[in-house]
Amino acid sequence: MTRSAPSDQTARIDDALERLLPSSDTAPERLHAAMRYSVLSGGKRIRPRLVYATGAVLGLDPAALDAPAVAVECIHAYSLIHDDLPAMDDDALRRGRATTHIAYDEATAILAGDALQALAFEVLATDPGLDARPAVRAALLATLARAVGSRGMVGGQVLDMLSEGRAIDRDALEHVHALKTGALLRACVLMAADSHPDLDPAQRAALDRFATRIGLAFQVRDDVLDIDSSTAVLGKTQGADAAHDKATYPALLGLEAARAYADRLHAEAIEALAVFGAAGAPLLTIADEIVRRDH
Amino acid sequence: MTRSAPSDQTARIDDALERLLPSSDTAPERLHAAMRYSVLSGGKRIRPRLVYATGAVLGLDPAALDAPAVAVECIHAYSLIHDDLPAMDDDALRRGRATTHIAYDEATAILAGDALQALAFEVLATDPGLDARPAVRAALLATLARAVGSRGMVGGQVLDMLSEGRAIDRDALEHVHALKTGALLRACVLMAADSHPDLDPAQRAALDRFATRIGLAFQVRDDVLDIDSSTAVLGKTQGADAAHDKATYPALLGLEAARAYADRLHAEAIEALAVFGAAGAPLLTIADEIVRRDH
Repeated sequence: MTRSAPSDQTARIDDALERLLPSSDTAPERLHAAMRYSVLSGGKRIRPRLVYATGAVLGLDPAALDAPAVAVECIHAYSLIHDDLPAMDDDALRRGRATTHIAYDEATAILAGDALQALAFEVLATDPGLDARPAVRAALLATLARAVGSRGMVGGQVLDMLSEGRAIDRDALEHVHALKTGALLRACVLMAADSHPDLDPAQRAALDRFATRIGLAFQVRDDVLDIDSSTAVLGKTQGADAAHDKATYPALLGLEAARAYADRLHAEAIEALAVFGAAGAPLLTIADEIVRRDH
Repeated sequence: MTRSAPSDQTARIDDALERLLPSSDTAPERLHAAMRYSVLSGGKRIRPRLVYATGAVLGLDPAALDAPAVAVECIHAYSLIHDDLPAMDDDALRRGRATTHIAYDEATAILAGDALQALAFEVLATDPGLDARPAVRAALLATLARAVGSRGMVGGQVLDMLSEGRAIDRDALEHVHALKTGALLRACVLMAADSHPDLDPAQRAALDRFATRIGLAFQVRDDVLDIDSSTAVLGKTQGADAAHDKATYPALLGLEAARAYADRLHAEAIEALAVFGAAGAPLLTIADEIVRRDH
């Protein structure tokens, strides 16, 4: 398989976000400005690109995936805003810029997060491209809702918080991350699968396996980066995990073993793509990027 | 038209909430306990009862309305949790009990609110009763998502916050409330209408008119109660609006004129129900209760 360049997908998601986020001169302007500040602040767009890349593997029209791509990025942005709040991680810096509650204020940040979560569901529920496919719309909404609630992303956030300052074992850490970061990454892949009119169950299972491995690799790599990188490269406060006394893979396994674990997950993810042959290339590109990224 | 007793609907929503909220021994237990604490703390269940009452007017099976009824109550509970946070209204008391961030902690309260919003959409997206009716499911999700986002409930919350300590006129106040409390109350009625297989557009328009009037009457009555009632009856800190220097109908119109305005809105709401004849009784009961309630 060969790798493909991600620049088209990044341009596509930026256009779709620009189009589907309310403009900052729509009332309430301050709220919409805060929502746009957090969503349109750059970032790697890994999640929407996972949606598009999965769609490319399955031969789907990318236009049909704009709604799920925007939805996952809105969810991601909302989760970052709320994670950064004083009552949570209390972070002042994100992607090299002031976090939303610093740039605006805490109440506006809470509400911008709330509104971004609602917008994710609104975009899926109202996308005219899905009018003729109500069952696909329902599947997309169910996949996203399950992934982000108390038994998904938010549940993982709580488990992560409860684990601070405690000794937890590898299984428990794996469970935290399967929910906290894994559930949404998996939803990105599954929502593209949901959009396929008639997907072979074996292909869906392969995509699910890919998504699970890559989601975990993402987190292991994140933990390693938190130790390796400088604040300037990372765009957030370096060493923040250690400062919060969080369990991490390097702390549990040692730095080298954590790196090797990320490599193994990467290899398993790529193996899962074998069923797609050469068509799997777009997901290969993202898998490489997730494990090799330096920020 | 005659009035009917609301006790059946209250028992029905309490059962449905008990069934559809994750149990407090499902991990993460602390999160689910906080979600249940805020949702199952009693309250008048006005919103789910509006869903069921509208369904009764339209002759719908109440079992088909459990999902939207639970969804609106989850949204309502999440909005209260976030409104009560220190960065927002900073309230320690709600329905006579400690608010969620006092009973638990601030981070858990933020996340319980986030998870309740997700659960509202999950319940609608996954209710097996809607499997055979994907277009109804899509309509319900669209109605709810539009009502609760930045151009609905959350937008109203921001406008309310921005209006604190400023002189705003009656139109502006009406707009704040049309969004902050009105949008979700309206969605309760419209979601029941969405559930009808073939609703006459004139009946839908009448329901919308009813919902708009009753939503505004609810807020005007709330403002009047904030002045009239003692903290013990109200179950929240009395005079809180004045303490926050919020614009209210009594402040703008005077107390007597505000009462008269609530009565006029009530009369207009009942007028809108005329098209349903005697079948309109269940909504009449709620309209009476909203304007006559003393807490």
